[in-house]
Amino acid sequence: MRNFICLAVLASCFNVIAFNAYSQTMQLAAGVQKVTSGTIDKFTPYSFCSEQPMSAALSELPAGKLPFSVDDIKIKINDRGVVVEVPLDDTEQLYGFGMQIGSFNQRGLKKRPIVNDNPLNDLGYTHGPTTFYVSSKGYGILINTSRYATFYCGNTSKLNKSKNDGKESNGGNSVEELYKSDNKASGSVTVDILGAKGIEVFVFDGPDLKTAVQRYNLFSGGGALPAIWGLGVKYRVKADFNQYQVDKMAAYFRDNHIPCDVLGLEPRWQTASYSCSYVWNKSFFPTPNEFIDSMKNKGFHINLWEHAFVSPKSPLYEPLKNKAGNYLVWNGLVPDFADTSASNLFADYHKQTFVQPGISGFKMDECDNSNIAFGSGAWSFPELSQFPSGIDGEQMHQLFGLLYQKTIYSIYKKLNQRTYLDVRASNTFASSYPAALYSDTYLHDEYIRMILNSGFAGMIWSPEVRESNSIKDFMRRSQTAVLSAQTLYNSWYLQNPPWLQINREKNNKGELMDNAKEVEGDIRKLLNFRMSLIPYLYNAFADYHFKGIPPFRALVMDYPQDKNTFNLSDEYMIGNDILAAPLTEKMDERQVYLPEGVWYDYNTNQKYEGGKSYTIKPSLTQLPIFIKAGTILPLAKPVEFVAPNTKFEITCYVYGNGNKASLFEDDGLTFNYENGTYNTVNLVWNKNKGEVKRTGKFKSSRYIIKNWQVIN
Amino acid sequence: MRNFICLAVLASCFNVIAFNAYSQTMQLAAGVQKVTSGTIDKFTPYSFCSEQPMSAALSELPAGKLPFSVDDIKIKINDRGVVVEVPLDDTEQLYGFGMQIGSFNQRGLKKRPIVNDNPLNDLGYTHGPTTFYVSSKGYGILINTSRYATFYCGNTSKLNKSKNDGKESNGGNSVEELYKSDNKASGSVTVDILGAKGIEVFVFDGPDLKTAVQRYNLFSGGGALPAIWGLGVKYRVKADFNQYQVDKMAAYFRDNHIPCDVLGLEPRWQTASYSCSYVWNKSFFPTPNEFIDSMKNKGFHINLWEHAFVSPKSPLYEPLKNKAGNYLVWNGLVPDFADTSASNLFADYHKQTFVQPGISGFKMDECDNSNIAFGSGAWSFPELSQFPSGIDGEQMHQLFGLLYQKTIYSIYKKLNQRTYLDVRASNTFASSYPAALYSDTYLHDEYIRMILNSGFAGMIWSPEVRESNSIKDFMRRSQTAVLSAQTLYNSWYLQNPPWLQINREKNNKGELMDNAKEVEGDIRKLLNFRMSLIPYLYNAFADYHFKGIPPFRALVMDYPQDKNTFNLSDEYMIGNDILAAPLTEKMDERQVYLPEGVWYDYNTNQKYEGGKSYTIKPSLTQLPIFIKAGTILPLAKPVEFVAPNTKFEITCYVYGNGNKASLFEDDGLTFNYENGTYNTVNLVWNKNKGEVKRTGKFKSSRYIIKNWQVIN
Repeated sequence: MRNFICLAVLASCFNVIAFNAYSQTMQLAAGVQKVTSGTIDKFTPYSFCSEQPMSAALSELPAGKLPFSVDDIKIKINDRGVVVEVPLDDTEQLYGFGMQIGSFNQRGLKKRPIVNDNPLNDLGYTHGPTTFYVSSKGYGILINTSRYATFYCGNTSKLNKSKNDGKESNGGNSVEELYKSDNKASGSVTVDILGAKGIEVFVFDGPDLKTAVQRYNLFSGGGALPAIWGLGVKYRVKADFNQYQVDKMAAYFRDNHIPCDVLGLEPRWQTASYSCSYVWNKSFFPTPNEFIDSMKNKGFHINLWEHAFVSPKSPLYEPLKNKAGNYLVWNGLVPDFADTSASNLFADYHKQTFVQPGISGFKMDECDNSNIAFGSGAWSFPELSQFPSGIDGEQMHQLFGLLYQKTIYSIYKKLNQRTYLDVRASNTFASSYPAALYSDTYLHDEYIRMILNSGFAGMIWSPEVRESNSIKDFMRRSQTAVLSAQTLYNSWYLQNPPWLQINREKNNKGELMDNAKEVEGDIRKLLNFRMSLIPYLYNAFADYHFKGIPPFRALVMDYPQDKNTFNLSDEYMIGNDILAAPLTEKMDERQVYLPEGVWYDYNTNQKYEGGKSYTIKPSLTQLPIFIKAGTILPLAKPVEFVAPNTKFEITCYVYGNGNKASLFEDDGLTFNYENGTYNTVNLVWNKNKGEVKRTGKFKSSRYIIKNWQVIN
Repeated sequence: MRNFICLAVLASCFNVIAFNAYSQTMQLAAGVQKVTSGTIDKFTPYSFCSEQPMSAALSELPAGKLPFSVDDIKIKINDRGVVVEVPLDDTEQLYGFGMQIGSFNQRGLKKRPIVNDNPLNDLGYTHGPTTFYVSSKGYGILINTSRYATFYCGNTSKLNKSKNDGKESNGGNSVEELYKSDNKASGSVTVDILGAKGIEVFVFDGPDLKTAVQRYNLFSGGGALPAIWGLGVKYRVKADFNQYQVDKMAAYFRDNHIPCDVLGLEPRWQTASYSCSYVWNKSFFPTPNEFIDSMKNKGFHINLWEHAFVSPKSPLYEPLKNKAGNYLVWNGLVPDFADTSASNLFADYHKQTFVQPGISGFKMDECDNSNIAFGSGAWSFPELSQFPSGIDGEQMHQLFGLLYQKTIYSIYKKLNQRTYLDVRASNTFASSYPAALYSDTYLHDEYIRMILNSGFAGMIWSPEVRESNSIKDFMRRSQTAVLSAQTLYNSWYLQNPPWLQINREKNNKGELMDNAKEVEGDIRKLLNFRMSLIPYLYNAFADYHFKGIPPFRALVMDYPQDKNTFNLSDEYMIGNDILAAPLTEKMDERQVYLPEGVWYDYNTNQKYEGGKSYTIKPSLTQLPIFIKAGTILPLAKPVEFVAPNTKFEITCYVYGNGNKASLFEDDGLTFNYENGTYNTVNLVWNKNKGEVKRTGKFKSSRYIIKNWQVIN
């Protein structure tokens, strides 16, 4: 407190206008408080959150207790902007800031969570930043701003004039010691919000890290529940494929019994793409609606690539001209999505032209930003842009992907039709959007780390597979894709599926690998496992929606007392009971740390005692996962795609002294579950006998429990 | 103009407060104007420029003409900050923004010239940013702000609502075309200065690019003229060397006749270094003043490493405690150098403790900033810091290295004693500071590019040599060091000179290379050439001071009409008549573009016609330079160090039909040249006979012209 008093005395020379003088604290929901000070910006992330907090679910969470008083959160407002200081003790570990690419445990780092397509040396730039972090002490802090904010995560120290607290030092004895800093971590996370005149700080109680994240997701409207077919396999075809070529690719999948639910079209479908016309190019897709129908009959959903920069050739150009920013991107308009009338125009057009004729989703590209020069220099609108709604380019950048998702998602929501979208940018309060983030970057270890970080962010991450350096690399990447929220092969520049030829050049020349059929078979195995996992995954997503539990998450979220998990950024939980430990290209084996309890290697059924590390050597077709003892793992007989009437035939694997598990069951296609139209299928292993207890209002069924198998 | 009218109409919804409404234009000096709008920040770079413009020299430059009217520079002020738009035509090439690391021609790029130790993917972060750029059309623009500014260098385009200017596009035929953007460059450089309430824009006339740079340097007080010994060789010893070990190293240089003028001490000399005590550690340097004297007697100047973060153990701590920022760095105070009384305290202490006893210069380390995590995370004070003078952390970061230089330089200036400093950060209006920038980065091609970029920035760059991967790499780096503004071997972690062992580990074990003596001999050759070049270099620096011509500069500066020079970032001019084309590690040969005229290969005397490219294959001991026909190159007999009374014995090489050249002559040690106490030594080749005409007020002489040699 002493520092604050000193500062107050110096207020006149430091231009401190307000100093926690008017900060107010408000209870928003169970365990969610808001501290407010000064004049709040109009365009905050929360101001665009249309979903209501899931109050009942919030109330059911155990009560948490902050390790400090909310009054200890200091807000200072001066000419420069707003500074927030949140207490931090020496032992706390911090996580979050969205889809961070290079860092996991953020304690001690300076982070700027800014929407951008390039990580810029781990300063925090990412497709999916959030101004939200959680602490191992069991709480979360969210700064509700669309401005570029800087977080000093315990790496600053303040001058205390009344105390010379220098440690004695002899100047060092080695070269290393001589340059060693006499650092003292601070007792706060300090947030710098340049240009703001006031701020809202949302505080999410625990009692533990996972519960704090659950509160955030539930407060955001609950986690996304994608259409059930979205949990199958998505394949994006080569950018210049025409209708006939897409049809041929579809036939390849079915002829060769390789699972595929969604085919994604890249730019060729439009008359103009950079910027976008949103008009079918009839030269290449002469009968789009018939094409969609015919694909649907073969069990394929069609997803369309686009971005939101409206070409002068687009029918949306004239209507949007007065509802757009004052800078163009690729000669296209930037719709003012902060203005409902602009997003409604965009949504209505998409509804009539694409969604009603049967397009099941979109890939919303280029809604991030770029600072750097890939050939033609940085792109997107400048931060100084102005929009008719009054939002500036900086805040619009932070929100653009979020508002784009909201615009497109609203179409499906109103039609009571679920979807699974792809999006290149997101931000805070996006938990309820069923859109998977992706990136042009392609480092496998970063992709794995981002699976973990997505769990702190209320986001879904799609570690897509493209070409590869080696078959081993390709298979390891495919394993990670199978063990992620979306299994996506993005072949936008590949004539043939990459498993027939991993080399881009040869692939496009039609030179298939000698062992193409063998690799195809291995991939079929992996993708069939993905299809087997759908009921389990779907239940994990239901837990995301109803309880706020991220379906994919770091081990520290489930085991916050275990110090070995604090920096463990290459293993993660899938749902309640699966631990994944992916391998990357160069690995034939890896170390896996298993937390407390007993675990089973899925491939060998070998039993492991937790609290230790082990070496595993899964083959290229074995998925590197462990099952927690005491559970029942329901795996389905793989289908090639999920049809509206698909019924999954399930085998229940009883691990250890497993006694129960459950599956969420509904139509998988509508939002009727929001009105309670769903079942809980309880799987109970009772005295050497499996029992199925189905409760709920969903009149049909998706799951047929066929077999029980005990693993000991 | 149309866009501006549209915006004015929309002013109310966009919060446009002022709109060029009150902008004023003022003539500051010949060819230098200032456009002002709004309320100007107190802490601008120019507000700290203590040097007066060199008005007479400015008046002597040829008159320039802007390709636009100053009234066409638009300044907009709104709630967000200030936006400046400067006209730009389609053919203009842009250079500048300080010591840019990855980019040279900045046209089409987004640049944020921010003080930082890491380039962050060429966005503009560098040790030495400037908010100054020059155009191939012959003018310079300087935004006088210490805030973080963003420059869009012709890569934005504005919406023009009255005109749908979309080009027709068929959507593309290849994958590449499908993703090709329909981009249209803008007609402006747009500058975004977040948080400002007004701005000063300095406009420097040409008529050409070089003259615009000259005007900038002359307006800044003229270019730096280092002490003449500073142009020799500097060697920084291992960080943990004690007095005895430094003495031994000094003896090595003299015993082996390897030129060396300056020995730099790293942290061990202080009682505490991170943060700094500024107190000799008597355990390791028992008799510092005697040591300095004894080194002086052997012809060595001593340079001390330090940084400006004041340890609680320092005698400066208590006096500076109330004149420091509210955040600590490495537990040390950050002196408020924006307050003269703070910098005076710092300077007075240094004067008495170090400069008066004979310390000839300092290495001012760590005055930049770091965003990223090398082990312990980002360091330095946060941008939100507050200082008693009223400056904030952001502006202090931009100015800290500049003000640190000013503080230290003022000591020497007042003592009428010249110096040559090292500094890790600089900024706008630094031309007059004799301080060489350096970096922890170590890519040779970047180091070369930075030599070129330094010429647009009013900065001096030192591409230091440390360890190497191979002898070839080491020799090529040494060649570049010899052909740069400061020849520096930074052996802060090397027990032995790197030419005896290039490998760090072996070097420190004392395992010298088998061919150590051979490599030592090769290095002796290179360093002797450096010593030969001193009179020529010193004259180039005098041209920097008196005429503002950068001693090291890109070819585009001398040949702005030659399109081949627009993106030529690996060749540069040294002084008037030498063209350098360094080779890097992997090269045995390289292409050299020679601009118009006739050129001589220095090594072979082969004659080349300009306007073409040639392949050269200089050996490891041959310097890759060309001499312009029509000049006289004065080269000195190498000395091992430059003593106060050194007289250089010079051979004049007459190239082609060379008829004249000149040398600047003074004591090399004081600022007496500012009062006209110097000579111009005119070298004239007249009818097969060399003549020396000396004019000026310097009563002594430095140069003895011994021989003349004609190269044809």
